[in-house]
Amino acid sequence: MNFASDNWAGAHPQIAEALTNNAGGYASAYGTGDLDKQVERIFCDVFERDVAVFFVGTGTAANSLSLAWAARPGGVAFCHAEAHAIEDEGGAPEYLTGGARLKGVAGRLGRMDPNALGAAIREHPAEFVHAGQPMAASITQATEIGTLYSLDDIETIAGICREADIPLHLDGARFANALVALDTTPAQMTWKRGVDIVSFGGTKNGCWCAEAIVVLDPAKVGQMHFLRKRAAQLFSKSRFIASQFEAYFRDDLWLKTARHANAMARELATALSAAEGVRLAWQPQANEVFALMSAEKAKALQASGARFYPWKPPLSFASEIRDGDVLHRFVTSFATEPSEITQFADLLQG
Amino acid sequence: MNFASDNWAGAHPQIAEALTNNAGGYASAYGTGDLDKQVERIFCDVFERDVAVFFVGTGTAANSLSLAWAARPGGVAFCHAEAHAIEDEGGAPEYLTGGARLKGVAGRLGRMDPNALGAAIREHPAEFVHAGQPMAASITQATEIGTLYSLDDIETIAGICREADIPLHLDGARFANALVALDTTPAQMTWKRGVDIVSFGGTKNGCWCAEAIVVLDPAKVGQMHFLRKRAAQLFSKSRFIASQFEAYFRDDLWLKTARHANAMARELATALSAAEGVRLAWQPQANEVFALMSAEKAKALQASGARFYPWKPPLSFASEIRDGDVLHRFVTSFATEPSEITQFADLLQG
Amino acid sequence: MNFASDNWAGAHPQIAEALTNNAGGYASAYGTGDLDKQVERIFCDVFERDVAVFFVGTGTAANSLSLAWAARPGGVAFCHAEAHAIEDEGGAPEYLTGGARLKGVAGRLGRMDPNALGAAIREHPAEFVHAGQPMAASITQATEIGTLYSLDDIETIAGICREADIPLHLDGARFANALVALDTTPAQMTWKRGVDIVSFGGTKNGCWCAEAIVVLDPAKVGQMHFLRKRAAQLFSKSRFIASQFEAYFRDDLWLKTARHANAMARELATALSAAEGVRLAWQPQANEVFALMSAEKAKALQASGARFYPWKPPLSFASEIRDGDVLHRFVTSFATEPSEITQFADLLQG
Amino acid sequence: MNFASDNWAGAHPQIAEALTNNAGGYASAYGTGDLDKQVERIFCDVFERDVAVFFVGTGTAANSLSLAWAARPGGVAFCHAEAHAIEDEGGAPEYLTGGARLKGVAGRLGRMDPNALGAAIREHPAEFVHAGQPMAASITQATEIGTLYSLDDIETIAGICREADIPLHLDGARFANALVALDTTPAQMTWKRGVDIVSFGGTKNGCWCAEAIVVLDPAKVGQMHFLRKRAAQLFSKSRFIASQFEAYFRDDLWLKTARHANAMARELATALSAAEGVRLAWQPQANEVFALMSAEKAKALQASGARFYPWKPPLSFASEIRDGDVLHRFVTSFATEPSEITQFADLLQG
Repeated sequence: MNFASDNWAGAHPQIAEALTNNAGGYASAYGTGDLDKQVERIFCDVFERDVAVFFVGTGTAANSLSLAWAARPGGVAFCHAEAHAIEDEGGAPEYLTGGARLKGVAGRLGRMDPNALGAAIREHPAEFVHAGQPMAASITQATEIGTLYSLDDIETIAGICREADIPLHLDGARFANALVALDTTPAQMTWKRGVDIVSFGGTKNGCWCAEAIVVLDPAKVGQMHFLRKRAAQLFSKSRFIASQFEAYFRDDLWLKTARHANAMARELATALSAAEGVRLAWQPQANEVFALMSAEKAKALQASGARFYPWKPPLSFASEIRDGDVLHRFVTSFATEPSEITQFADLLQG
Repeated sequence: MNFASDNWAGAHPQIAEALTNNAGGYASAYGTGDLDKQVERIFCDVFERDVAVFFVGTGTAANSLSLAWAARPGGVAFCHAEAHAIEDEGGAPEYLTGGARLKGVAGRLGRMDPNALGAAIREHPAEFVHAGQPMAASITQATEIGTLYSLDDIETIAGICREADIPLHLDGARFANALVALDTTPAQMTWKRGVDIVSFGGTKNGCWCAEAIVVLDPAKVGQMHFLRKRAAQLFSKSRFIASQFEAYFRDDLWLKTARHANAMARELATALSAAEGVRLAWQPQANEVFALMSAEKAKALQASGARFYPWKPPLSFASEIRDGDVLHRFVTSFATEPSEITQFADLLQG
Repeated sequence: MNFASDNWAGAHPQIAEALTNNAGGYASAYGTGDLDKQVERIFCDVFERDVAVFFVGTGTAANSLSLAWAARPGGVAFCHAEAHAIEDEGGAPEYLTGGARLKGVAGRLGRMDPNALGAAIREHPAEFVHAGQPMAASITQATEIGTLYSLDDIETIAGICREADIPLHLDGARFANALVALDTTPAQMTWKRGVDIVSFGGTKNGCWCAEAIVVLDPAKVGQMHFLRKRAAQLFSKSRFIASQFEAYFRDDLWLKTARHANAMARELATALSAAEGVRLAWQPQANEVFALMSAEKAKALQASGARFYPWKPPLSFASEIRDGDVLHRFVTSFATEPSEITQFADLLQG
Repeated sequence: MNFASDNWAGAHPQIAEALTNNAGGYASAYGTGDLDKQVERIFCDVFERDVAVFFVGTGTAANSLSLAWAARPGGVAFCHAEAHAIEDEGGAPEYLTGGARLKGVAGRLGRMDPNALGAAIREHPAEFVHAGQPMAASITQATEIGTLYSLDDIETIAGICREADIPLHLDGARFANALVALDTTPAQMTWKRGVDIVSFGGTKNGCWCAEAIVVLDPAKVGQMHFLRKRAAQLFSKSRFIASQFEAYFRDDLWLKTARHANAMARELATALSAAEGVRLAWQPQANEVFALMSAEKAKALQASGARFYPWKPPLSFASEIRDGDVLHRFVTSFATEPSEITQFADLLQG
């Protein structure tokens, strides 16, 4: 019963196997090998257009370099006030962009409010050097708290970005979970709705370590090659990332693992809803479930072997928390066993 | 017959197998898992003392963050003029140190000359803000061109650093190759001779992607935790690096693979020495062989299936190159088959 | 009737005269001349202790380098959400600190609320690399909106900083205005109450260009010499700053000009209070007055020759603004003529 | 007899007077005032074309921001190995460019050799991320050691830059001294010969503190406004710089002071040449004279009241120094009195 995080899971057997299968022989280094090229073409297929792909080692690197790609001096990047880039990346986005500011924008349940975004941008008029200048907006899909932007939401935000002449970044650490939840295509969830650059995460969904920056219009690749190298993110044996992605996309493994994780989350939510002294904080839309219960209740469950943690309440939700209730997060993944859910459901009933 | 680079090889089967074996189950993320802790203890055993270990993704990251750890504003780091950090890291050391300068120091065949180092340091007196201030020296062991510092060489340079009150970094992208060539211990090659911090590379010697920064005195760990995170080098599923190192050290795999690579280099050198129209540029001491031959000769060999490349002559060697001769590099690795050498020897004779 | 800003004024005649008087002769450059040393000793007298003084060219440089002095990787500096460093310095603090984050803390009328500060710090536990680490707090005295921290307020905030093991910076762009308003001493307003480092501004109070970073405990000067040089803020003919400060302190010129500016502000406030259709937003405590009036009223006054501007309402005040009212700022300085006030008072009545 | 440096002089009386004359009245801040605009137009006249002008506080800032304007990730800027930016700016160019590398290029007596420049650029092929990418070349005119590039030299170097698609920066800390020595025009010495951006220095030639970055094609101004602000170099009372430049250009004051300084240098050289035990190191072309003499001789002169210093010999000159000889630098300026020269000549004879 481990619902601690989707990065507590290891690697999907097919990912591990792919690495073993590709371990032999010689391949040109630093992303120039045949497998690297082949996987780049797979990305083009997945996104239904030519895209430029840059493998990197961590989601933080993908986000930080996507913003570095968009950076301007005195630049301000707009993201949800509780975005991963703000709360959990230890200053990497600021550092790797040469000191950009991440401006937190308000919004219900992890999603930037378009009006708030527009207002925040307008506080930084293009020619007013004192306030800094807008350089990018960033949305997280699925969000940090397991909610989703609809395709129309994305389009609305992209429109605001276009007006402000700034690119739109999508932090897709849980890209696959969002994709299958919305039952849409990568193209629809990104460039067809105005996204310019994507942090495409494989790690949380079954890879060991496979993240890619996808520049959706290859004509706008700019300085990304040098930015990645300068950030020490160009891997010599780059095929070890390519191999993972090759297996990830083969036979739609990535969609299957994401569907599984989301299904497990729904079942977990059902179990939590049914339990006394527990209520869902909001409906899960991807692979994270948030529930309120007393600290005592949580401790009892944990003592019985369930692994999950308290979570800082979103500002937009704080007022809905009753005295004595504590918000907790439960995360599912490709590795979650149905038996973990039923065992936990029993525990909740017990 | 692939002598292009030791990073054209993939992963040793035992490394790949270890990853598969560790793919299942849950483990605490971001370097806090049991396996991570266990591997850190192995490093302590290997170095015969308590050390602080930081896994990172690339050798460039290890070097850059080692220098960042030593950084001072206006800082100058001294390394050989043809060091990897200067020639091949795309500005990552400069960027990740906040703008430090890498000052190239002269020296025969890849090794900094101690007198030249002393003179270079003295050009930056401690209190003279205009010239910047010394912050670190860095040696590469084995060097970029397959030569070695003796233990006494290291001790001499460390003494100069201590006098200047700067730490000594050792770039050990080929640490194991140097170690077995000198038939010494990690302790002797580092802290017992005055090295303060090591880029400990596993990738070139049989891992997929396993690099570690080793701070030899854990009391001096300083800000390394935050430096690594800020550089986007803290991996969520960090056990994928730990697993590699666990297999790397088990039953001395790392020493075996390094000995193999070095032995292959020696045989390759013998074969090259014996060939007409070819002469060794200098005696190989680790797993790289440099030889002079005409461009035509090289092309003929390459056309027959041998993979190797021309190399920019070291400044200290340039005068020894005769008209018509071109310097070429041959690299061996754990993956080099003895049959590749014999096949190449035949080709050379043919 | 120019109330646009205290930096629209030029230089006090005694400042200009001092520059002329010091224009001749040779003096050792880069801050090493006799006059520089003499002025440093005056600073020690002013602060009643040995202090380390660093002249720089702009208030933004003083603030940014004070924070750079305190910087840690992944560092977070806490200041009021509407502080100058956040709103008006174009990313210089972020850049010159190597990517530190400025975390806006709430508080009434420009002053950080100590509880909010404590809570913000606690969101960045010392060993949790993901959230970044606290590195400094910064207060502005007088604040951006002409209010003051009491000495006890400063002491309270300093206590919170000490507990969190971070230094306290005071942005004293209007140091003198605050000092005379509180009728206290530089020592009392700073180190006796726990301030560690001060941006000591002379420019807004009658100098051309004279700012100093004052490290209150010279034993903690750290890397400031190199930080200033690296930021291109070490002036060759540094005596041109020293000269200004020498005249600034001579015969208490600085206190006189500050008292004058504050007195002018009080008279302006009286005039505004008495006018129909105008109300003071809050009591001015230094040399800035904020008043509410309709846009039409403001335009009429401006059309009659009064220079002042609308101002973005502080978040903590927004709810007190009635429909149709617009907040406006009026700033006085050493250069404000009493006749400007009476002329404006007449205009308000007219 | 003070020949220590041209920045040991203070300000020309007309500069000081201009500051006094402009001290009164109100002016819009941060470079938006009428005088600022007027001086920008004077710069256009001086350069015989529309240019974009950015006042900054120090020559180091002008150089660093000019390079920042040209910066690319992993960027390499080429300048003479003994350029001020390399030897004397404390890492500011590296810091303010986000970690660019300054690559020292060889050349006789302070001037980059065009062939060496071409070779250095070719070591960084445009698409090879490992070596970094060329981003700019920078020449100093007059050089650090008082020599000059001819207009044809400049054109040759500009041609190499154009081929490599990098801009050419001219460090004009002693722009006026070079200009009058070559008897040419600012247009000829810059854009007509291919220079793209200039650090235009007024400080060494009679100003207190007046430096300007001149972007010669205003269409290429790029991010300079934000770069300057982000570096804390946008002055609030910017008219104090504008005033200095206004006086500097009025009635050709700047040309007169430069001619005077150069003439004094020539007389100083004559006096040195005539002295026993002294020989000129090379012919002075601007306002610096370098001479060889024994340390004893130098000490005796200094003991008699002459102020000058030893200087690190240029690499290209080192072999010409005889045992016992020490290289010394003598600098003249607007402030050098003819009587200082005659007094020194007497001393040399005595």
